[in-house]
Amino acid sequence: MKNVINETTIQLGVCYYPEHWPEKLWEDDFRRMKEMGFQYVRMAEFAWTIFEPIEGTFEFDLFDRAIQLAKKYDLKVIMGTPTATPPAWLTDKYPEVLNVSREGVRYHHGSRRHYNYNSEIYRTLSKRIVTEMVEHYKDNPTVVGWQIDNEINCEMNVFYSEADHTNFRNWVKEKYQTLDNVNEAWGTIFWNQTYTEWRQIYLTRPTVNDSYNPHQLLDEKRFISDSAISFVQMQADIIRSITDKQWVTTNGMFGHLDNHRMTKEALDFYAYDSYPNFNKIIEDNSFMPLRDRKWSLNLSTVRSFGGNFAIFEQQAGPGGWVNRIEQPTPRPGQLRLWTYQSIAHGADLVLYFRWRTATKGSEIYWHGINDYHNLPNRRISELKQTSEEMQKLGSAIFDSKYVADAAILTDYENEWDGEEDKWFGQFIGESKEAWFKAFQYHHIPVDIVNVTQNMALETLIKYKVLVYPHAAILTEKTANLLKGYVEQGGTIIFGARTGYKDLTGQTYMKAFPGYIKDLVGITVEEYTLLNGWQKNPYVNLFDNQLNTHGFNEVLQPEADNVEVIGTYQNAHYEGKPALTRRKVSEGTAYYYGGVFDYQTAALILEDVEISDYRSKFTLTPDIELAVREKDGEIVYILLNYSQEAQTIYLKVDMENLLDHDITSGDVTMAAYDVLVLKEK
Amino acid sequence: MKNVINETTIQLGVCYYPEHWPEKLWEDDFRRMKEMGFQYVRMAEFAWTIFEPIEGTFEFDLFDRAIQLAKKYDLKVIMGTPTATPPAWLTDKYPEVLNVSREGVRYHHGSRRHYNYNSEIYRTLSKRIVTEMVEHYKDNPTVVGWQIDNEINCEMNVFYSEADHTNFRNWVKEKYQTLDNVNEAWGTIFWNQTYTEWRQIYLTRPTVNDSYNPHQLLDEKRFISDSAISFVQMQADIIRSITDKQWVTTNGMFGHLDNHRMTKEALDFYAYDSYPNFNKIIEDNSFMPLRDRKWSLNLSTVRSFGGNFAIFEQQAGPGGWVNRIEQPTPRPGQLRLWTYQSIAHGADLVLYFRWRTATKGSEIYWHGINDYHNLPNRRISELKQTSEEMQKLGSAIFDSKYVADAAILTDYENEWDGEEDKWFGQFIGESKEAWFKAFQYHHIPVDIVNVTQNMALETLIKYKVLVYPHAAILTEKTANLLKGYVEQGGTIIFGARTGYKDLTGQTYMKAFPGYIKDLVGITVEEYTLLNGWQKNPYVNLFDNQLNTHGFNEVLQPEADNVEVIGTYQNAHYEGKPALTRRKVSEGTAYYYGGVFDYQTAALILEDVEISDYRSKFTLTPDIELAVREKDGEIVYILLNYSQEAQTIYLKVDMENLLDHDITSGDVTMAAYDVLVLKEK
Amino acid sequence: MKNVINETTIQLGVCYYPEHWPEKLWEDDFRRMKEMGFQYVRMAEFAWTIFEPIEGTFEFDLFDRAIQLAKKYDLKVIMGTPTATPPAWLTDKYPEVLNVSREGVRYHHGSRRHYNYNSEIYRTLSKRIVTEMVEHYKDNPTVVGWQIDNEINCEMNVFYSEADHTNFRNWVKEKYQTLDNVNEAWGTIFWNQTYTEWRQIYLTRPTVNDSYNPHQLLDEKRFISDSAISFVQMQADIIRSITDKQWVTTNGMFGHLDNHRMTKEALDFYAYDSYPNFNKIIEDNSFMPLRDRKWSLNLSTVRSFGGNFAIFEQQAGPGGWVNRIEQPTPRPGQLRLWTYQSIAHGADLVLYFRWRTATKGSEIYWHGINDYHNLPNRRISELKQTSEEMQKLGSAIFDSKYVADAAILTDYENEWDGEEDKWFGQFIGESKEAWFKAFQYHHIPVDIVNVTQNMALETLIKYKVLVYPHAAILTEKTANLLKGYVEQGGTIIFGARTGYKDLTGQTYMKAFPGYIKDLVGITVEEYTLLNGWQKNPYVNLFDNQLNTHGFNEVLQPEADNVEVIGTYQNAHYEGKPALTRRKVSEGTAYYYGGVFDYQTAALILEDVEISDYRSKFTLTPDIELAVREKDGEIVYILLNYSQEAQTIYLKVDMENLLDHDITSGDVTMAAYDVLVLKEK
Repeated sequence: MKNVINETTIQLGVCYYPEHWPEKLWEDDFRRMKEMGFQYVRMAEFAWTIFEPIEGTFEFDLFDRAIQLAKKYDLKVIMGTPTATPPAWLTDKYPEVLNVSREGVRYHHGSRRHYNYNSEIYRTLSKRIVTEMVEHYKDNPTVVGWQIDNEINCEMNVFYSEADHTNFRNWVKEKYQTLDNVNEAWGTIFWNQTYTEWRQIYLTRPTVNDSYNPHQLLDEKRFISDSAISFVQMQADIIRSITDKQWVTTNGMFGHLDNHRMTKEALDFYAYDSYPNFNKIIEDNSFMPLRDRKWSLNLSTVRSFGGNFAIFEQQAGPGGWVNRIEQPTPRPGQLRLWTYQSIAHGADLVLYFRWRTATKGSEIYWHGINDYHNLPNRRISELKQTSEEMQKLGSAIFDSKYVADAAILTDYENEWDGEEDKWFGQFIGESKEAWFKAFQYHHIPVDIVNVTQNMALETLIKYKVLVYPHAAILTEKTANLLKGYVEQGGTIIFGARTGYKDLTGQTYMKAFPGYIKDLVGITVEEYTLLNGWQKNPYVNLFDNQLNTHGFNEVLQPEADNVEVIGTYQNAHYEGKPALTRRKVSEGTAYYYGGVFDYQTAALILEDVEISDYRSKFTLTPDIELAVREKDGEIVYILLNYSQEAQTIYLKVDMENLLDHDITSGDVTMAAYDVLVLKEK
Repeated sequence: MKNVINETTIQLGVCYYPEHWPEKLWEDDFRRMKEMGFQYVRMAEFAWTIFEPIEGTFEFDLFDRAIQLAKKYDLKVIMGTPTATPPAWLTDKYPEVLNVSREGVRYHHGSRRHYNYNSEIYRTLSKRIVTEMVEHYKDNPTVVGWQIDNEINCEMNVFYSEADHTNFRNWVKEKYQTLDNVNEAWGTIFWNQTYTEWRQIYLTRPTVNDSYNPHQLLDEKRFISDSAISFVQMQADIIRSITDKQWVTTNGMFGHLDNHRMTKEALDFYAYDSYPNFNKIIEDNSFMPLRDRKWSLNLSTVRSFGGNFAIFEQQAGPGGWVNRIEQPTPRPGQLRLWTYQSIAHGADLVLYFRWRTATKGSEIYWHGINDYHNLPNRRISELKQTSEEMQKLGSAIFDSKYVADAAILTDYENEWDGEEDKWFGQFIGESKEAWFKAFQYHHIPVDIVNVTQNMALETLIKYKVLVYPHAAILTEKTANLLKGYVEQGGTIIFGARTGYKDLTGQTYMKAFPGYIKDLVGITVEEYTLLNGWQKNPYVNLFDNQLNTHGFNEVLQPEADNVEVIGTYQNAHYEGKPALTRRKVSEGTAYYYGGVFDYQTAALILEDVEISDYRSKFTLTPDIELAVREKDGEIVYILLNYSQEAQTIYLKVDMENLLDHDITSGDVTMAAYDVLVLKEK
Repeated sequence: MKNVINETTIQLGVCYYPEHWPEKLWEDDFRRMKEMGFQYVRMAEFAWTIFEPIEGTFEFDLFDRAIQLAKKYDLKVIMGTPTATPPAWLTDKYPEVLNVSREGVRYHHGSRRHYNYNSEIYRTLSKRIVTEMVEHYKDNPTVVGWQIDNEINCEMNVFYSEADHTNFRNWVKEKYQTLDNVNEAWGTIFWNQTYTEWRQIYLTRPTVNDSYNPHQLLDEKRFISDSAISFVQMQADIIRSITDKQWVTTNGMFGHLDNHRMTKEALDFYAYDSYPNFNKIIEDNSFMPLRDRKWSLNLSTVRSFGGNFAIFEQQAGPGGWVNRIEQPTPRPGQLRLWTYQSIAHGADLVLYFRWRTATKGSEIYWHGINDYHNLPNRRISELKQTSEEMQKLGSAIFDSKYVADAAILTDYENEWDGEEDKWFGQFIGESKEAWFKAFQYHHIPVDIVNVTQNMALETLIKYKVLVYPHAAILTEKTANLLKGYVEQGGTIIFGARTGYKDLTGQTYMKAFPGYIKDLVGITVEEYTLLNGWQKNPYVNLFDNQLNTHGFNEVLQPEADNVEVIGTYQNAHYEGKPALTRRKVSEGTAYYYGGVFDYQTAALILEDVEISDYRSKFTLTPDIELAVREKDGEIVYILLNYSQEAQTIYLKVDMENLLDHDITSGDVTMAAYDVLVLKEK
C-alpha cells in the first residue's frame, strides 16, 4: 500500500459524521483528533441527501466547511460515495430501485442497503452523484481517497427485484449462449425443469419446501457477485476518469462477493471493518475456541485479497444496534490489542469507528471512542496510548509483509455451492477454523489462499504446507495444479468429500475423490453422513482415539505407497482406513475421510514437516505470533488474547520496539498486552 | 365506582351468548344464574350480524327477547358494541377495513379483531351500528351499561393498512408541523433517512434485517394508542350523546394502548379480563416465581387506570383455543381464590367468562362455568359458594380503597421504546416483577403509578417509597418532580440505564444518569451489557454475594454524602460501586447500577423505611395480604396461593367477615383459601 | 394383486430415468438390471417436456427407444403420467396453474409439485398429455401399467390458488346446499362469522394469530382430499377408457388424502414409497423406540387401503436432497431387511429407487443402487442376493394374506380435525404408535382398520381386539357399530377424549364420552390437559406406577359392572378411576382416561385375551414376527432390526424357505437378518 497512500508509518484515524452534529462541535472534535495523533478522517458515506437534497440539485457547503476544518488540524479526508443509502425522494419516486425478498416483499426506506445493483435508474442516479462529488473534490488536496459505497453486500446479500431477474436472464444468456447449455449446466432434465424459452429464466423464486435448483442457485450467487462488482467498478471508473490523485477502495467483507476479483479489478487496496467483539454474541462451544482471535482468520483472508490493507472501521467500544447485536463492553486493553491484531496481519492504515457514539438512529449502541456526553473515558486514553506507540514504531512495520510457510486454500465455488449443500458445505468453515486453530496454537503463521481456475503454480510453491479441507468442486485443472505443487515438494492435506463435483455443482461420474484420486492414491469405498444426535464412530490417529462428526469416508488404498495412518473404530467399517499419507516425488499428500476438528488437525500438523519459531520463543497457547518482514528484517508481534498475564520465554535477545529495551528469558505479558520484538 | 354502578355490595355476573344457544335453553340458563346469586349478564359483543344482517337493515328481536327473559330473573344487562368482529358482508364489500401485516398480508374473516381503527368506512359503519343499538336500548332499564368493542388491541396491536399509513402521516403532520421537526425528532440524518416531502412518511415498512428507525417506531406506537382511543372515544361519545342513564366501559388490557388516558377521557370505569391460569403456560424459572399471583400485579396496574374497576371476564375453568393457549384445569378452590384476588385489588363487579363452554368455534376449550353438557360440576358449586360469600360480606369491601405506602412507577414512553430497545427494554418488566415479588413476600401492599409529563407532586407524596427501575427516557420535568418528592421526605430507588434518553428516544449528550444525576449524586463511569451465556460479575450487597445479569453500571460518586452500599466482584471493575444511597433533605435516593432480581430487591427493601403489618400478623410467603380501607375502617384480605395449607398467626383479635367468628393466634388456611378479617 | 399383475412370485424392479443419462449407457443398464433378477422398470413420471416440448406437439421417440431396449432384457415397463412436474412453458404461460401459499405467495418452477388440482387449464392440459401417452402406449405389451402422477400431496398438501378458492366455494355449496347449513356446520355464530352470501366463502385465509375456524378447516382438508382424488380419478378414467390391458395405480402416502377411497374408486392397487431410513433424521426419545420398524406401521396402514400392494420406491441407499433430509448410509443388511419388511406386510411387487444416483438436481444425495460412478458397490451385491432369494421363495409368499387378530382403528375425520386441535390431535399418533409397539414387542400381528360412517360390522368382527385410542369425533352410528362388535364378543379399548365431537368438529351437548357412554359405562367427572414441563400425576395400573402425560380424565362409573383397574396418584383426584373394564355380553370394553405410552398399552394388552405365537417361538423384542397365509398354509417371516445377532427358539420343526433346511430349537439370527419359515 506504500505507493498508494504514500506514507512511511502506520496511520491512524477515525470515522466522523459532521452532518450529525451541531457545527459548533466540529472544530473541537478535529482538534482532539489531532491531539490523539490521528491523521485520517473518513466522512460522507451516508450523506446523499446533504449533497443532493432535491433530485438534480447539488450542494457541497456543509462538507466543504468540514473538510476545511479538518485540514486546519492536518487531517487527511477520505470521502465515501453515498450510494449505500438512497434519499427518501429517490426510493419514493423510483421504487424499482429497491431490493425485494424472494417472496416478493419490497424493502423500504428505514434502514440501509435497501437498493439493488441492477436497477438502471439507480445506476444513472448513482453515476451522477458520484460524478458530481468527485468533480467537486478532485482538486482538493485534503481529500486523499474515496471509499465506494459502504459495506457492499452487508445486511442482505440476495436480490430479487425485477431488475435483478431481468439482468440475471441476460447474464445467463451471455454465459451460456444457448438454452441447451443452460439446461445442461443446471441439470434441468431432473424434475422436468427444462427451459424452452429465455423468458422462462429467472433467479430462484419461491418453491414448495424451499428447495431450489442447486446449480441455478450457484449461478445466482455468481451473478450477485458480478452485479456488486460491476456496481463498484462503475464508480471506480468514474473516479479514475476524473482524477488520478485520489485512491479508490471500498470496505467490508461480506458474502456472495468475489472480493479477490473486486480488489484486483476495481480497487487500489481493500479496506476491512474489524469488530472482534462480535465473538461475544456468537456462542462457541468448540474445544479451545478462538473467540476474538478468530478475527486473525478474517484478517488473513482480507490479506489474501491483495496484500496489505486498511481498516476503515476498527472496533472502538461496545457494539450494537437498538434491536440486535448486543455486544458487551471490551475490557481494558482489548481495543489496543485488536488494533495490533489488525496491524500484525497487514493493516497499514487503521480508522476507528466512530469518533462519537450516535445519539439517534439504529446504531446508538455502536459506541464510538467518545460517549454521547463527550466526557473523558477509558477508551480515549487507551487509543491515545496506542496512537503514541505508532509513533514509536516508526516505519518498522509499515508496509512490511506477513511471513507464512503454510496456507489454507479456499475458493468461492465451494463456499457458494456449500451454502445450499448440507452434505459438505458446513464442513468447509468448520475445518478451516479447526486448522487455523492448529496453526495458531502451534505458533505457525498461516496464509489464506484463494484457488482460481487460472492460478499459477508460483502462487502455491512458496508454501511448504497447504490444507484444502473439503473442496467438493475440484476441476481437472486444479487437480493438476495441486499435483504439480506436491511433485515439487509440497505437502497437501485434503478432507472428506473432496473432488466429486464440477463447476456447475453436478457430480462427476467418477470414483471419489475425482481428479485427485491419483495424487492421494485412494478411492472411497463406503461413506456416510453422520447425525449430530447419534453415536458417531471414533477414529484412531497416531494412537489417539478421537471423535468424528459430520461425515465418514472409508478409504481404499489404490497405490502401493499409500500409508494408512488412521483407522475407524466402533462402526461396521471398524479398522478400515480413515487417514492416509502418500509420498509423491518430493512431496506428500494426506487424505482424511472426515471433518477436521482442532484435535485431528493438530495431530496431523505434528506429522507434517514445517518450520516454526520454537528456536526463538516458548509461547503459551493464548499468545498469537505474527511474523513480519521488510527489507530482510524480521519483526515479531506477540499478542496476548487472555485476560490473564502470560509468561513467555525468549531464547534469543530481542529488542522491544515500543521501549527499545533489549530483553531475553522470561517475559511476562500482561492481560491483553502486545509485544513488538526484533531479534538483536 | 359506587356512583357509577349504583350498588352497595360486590356484584357478580356472567357472560352469556344467547345467539349461540337454542332459545329453549335461555330461560333455564337465566334462572340458574339467578340461583347462583348473579346480578349481571354481559351479552351481544360479537353479534353485529344479528343486529345488522344486511347492510343498513337492523333487527333487535333476538336480543330483545333475551333481555326480557334476563329481566324476569332480575339480571342487569351489559350490552357490548359489536365492532370487534365485523360481519362477513362488511369485510367482503369493504376489504380496506381489514388490518394488514407490515409485509402487506391482509388479515381476513375467520378469527376476530381483523379490522383497523383508521378506515373511514369502518368508522362510519361502526358509528351507525352503535347509534342504532344505543337508540334501541337507551330507555330499557334492564340495560345498565355498555362495553365498547371487546379487548381493544388484543390478538394484534400493530396496524399497517393503507388507512393506517395515511392517518399516521396526518398524525405526524399535526404533531410536528414541519418536516424539519420530524427529521430532528426521528434522527433521520442517520443513514440518510431525511424526509423531504410529506408523502414520503409512512408507518414502518419492511426493511432489511427488520431494523426500523427506533424514534419513528416509538411514534408509531403512540399513533396506534391514539387511534385505538379515538375509536373508543367515538363510540363513547355516541352513547353519551344518546343516554346518560347507561355507563360506558371497555374491557381488556393489551399493548400499545394508553389505558390511563383512555379510562380518564372516555370511560366511566375500566373493566379487566382476568385469567390467572395463563401462568400455567408460561414457564417461569425465576427464584420464588409468582405464578397466578402475578395477576395481582396486573390488577394493581388496572387499579392505577382509575381506581376501583370491574372484571368482565374472570376465569371460570380451563382455558384454551383449539390450536393454542393450552391451560390445564384450575384446582379446587382456585376459581374462588382468583375471584377474591380481583376483589382484593379493587374489583367491585366481577363477571365470569362464560356461562357455558362454547360448542363451536375457536374457543371450545375456553371453559365456562357449565360444561357443554350442562350437567352439575365442581366449578358451579365453587362459584355458588363464592357468590353466597359475597352476600355475607355485605358492603364491607365494596367501594373500599386499596391501601399502599409504596408504589412502582411505570410509563408508556419507556414501555414502548423498550419494546424495540434491547439495551434496557426487557429490564423494565424483569425489575418490575422482582420488586413486586419483594413487596408481596414482605406483605407490603404496593401500587402501580403511571408517570406522565404533567403529573402533580401530590400523586407521589402520599407514598413513602417509590421504585422506578429503568426509566431510560426521563425528562428534566420528571427529574424535577422526583427531586421534589425526595426533598419532601420520600425514598426513591432507581436501576441501571436510567435517564439517558429524551422523549424521542434519542440519547442526551449528558453524563449518565442524565437529569437525575444531581439527585442520586453519581455518574456512570463504565458500563456493559451482559450476555446470558457468559460468566457475569457478582455484586456484594449488605454482605450478600448475588448474581448480576443484563447490565452493569459502575457508579462514580459525585457528591459528598453518597454512601456506597454495594460493590461489584469478579470483574475488572471489582470493588467499584454498584449500589449507592444518598440522603437528600428529608428523603433518600438509591441508585443500583444493575437489573433487579428478587434477592437484590428484597435486600434493598429491608434497608428502606416503610411501614408493614408485622404488628398484626405473622404470615408465610405464600399468603398475599391486601389491605382495604373504607370510611376509616380497615379490612384485611389474606389469600393462600399454595396447594398446601398454611399456618399464620394473628397478633390481635380479628373478626372473620365470612363467618363473623372472632379469632386470634394460630390460624390454618386451607389450600387456596381466603380470609377476610377486620380488627376487633 | 395376483389378478391384476398376473404374476406368481414376488417381483422386483427399479426406477430408471433414461432421459437423464447418455443413451449409450442405457443398454448396459438394462442388461445389468436383468442380471440382478429385476423384472420391472418404472419410467417417465417426470418427463412431460420430453413428450410435449412445445405446447400441443408430442414426441415419443426417446421413450420408445428406451422401452424397446427394456423389452430386449425382458423388463416390464411401468409408465408414469408426468403431471407432477409441469413444463416451464406451461407454468410460464398459465401461472394460474401454480399452487399458492395461504398468504398469497405463488410457488414457481424450480422444484416439483407446484401445481394445483383445481385449475381448469391444468386439468385440460393434463388430460391431453395423459391421453396422448396412453394412446401411444396402449398396445405396447412391454408397458404393463400406469403410475398416475407422482406422490400425490407430497411436498405440500395445502392449496390456496384462486382455482382452489373457487372450487372450494362450489364444493361447499354442493355439500351444504344452503348458507344456513354452512353457518350451522361451521359454527359461524361464534365471533360473528356468519356468511350471508356465497361469495363470502373461501378456503381459510390469513387471520390474526393464525387461528382459523376449526370446522371450516376440517372441510378444507376434506376438499383437498376430494380435489386430489378427483385429479387422479380423471387420469384413471382416461387410461381405462383407452385400454383394459394396463393396470392403474399411484404411489406415495401423504397427508390430506383419503387413500382408502382413492384406492377403492380409482386404482387397481396402491403403491407405497418406503424409506425406513427416514427414522435416522427423526429423533425419538420414547421408551424402546421403533426406529425403522415404524415403517411396519406405515406398511400396515398401506395394507388397509386395499390389501396387498406394490412398493414403487424401496430405499436403496442413503437418502437426501441437497439442502434437506440428511439420511446416513444404511448398514450392511438393512436394504435386504427393509425389502422383506415390505413383503412381510403385503408387497407383491417391489421397485427400488433408483437405479443410479442422480448427478444433478435437488436429489443428488438420494442414492440409487449404483453410485454416480457406476462402479461395483455393497448395495448392488446385497440387492442381488435379495433378488436371488425371491426366486428361492417361489410362490410361497406372493399374494398371501397377512394374518392378524387385532386391529388399531383410525379414521380421517379425527386425523384431520386433530391436526388443528391440540386438545386431542397429537395424542392420536402417540397412542397409535404406543399400541403398535406393544403388539410388535409381544409378537402379535396387528392390522390398521379405517373407520367410516358406512362400514359393515363384518369388517370388525374378524378381529378379537380393537384399539381406538382418541376418537374425539365419534358418531352415534359408529358407537352403535362398536357396541355391536363388543356384544358379539369383541374387546375394544378406548383412550381419553373419546366421543365428544360430531362430524363437523363441534362438541356434543352430552356427557363425555358421548355415544359410547353406555358401552363403557362411565362418564368423565373431571379432566385436565397436562403441560409437559409441569409435574404430572401417576397412574396405578395392575400394581405398576406409571407416568401420565397429555391428558387426564377422571372416570365415574355409571354402571354396576364397571371394574376400576387403574387409579390416579399424586393429584387432587388421587385414588379416582383412570382405567375401567366392563363386560358387555360376550365382549369387553376398556376405557383409559389418559394417553397411551408403551408401558400402559403393554399392561393393558397383557390383560386382554388374544392368541399369540408363543407356542411356536420364543422371540426377542428386536424380532418382528409377520404371519402370512395362503391357501391354508402359514408362512412366518422373522425380521431382526437389531445391529446385534439375536438368538431365538423354535418350539416346533420349521422349514427355512430360503435354504429348505429343517430346523428347531435355538437359532441365531445375524444382525439385520431375515428368516422365512414354514411349520413342518
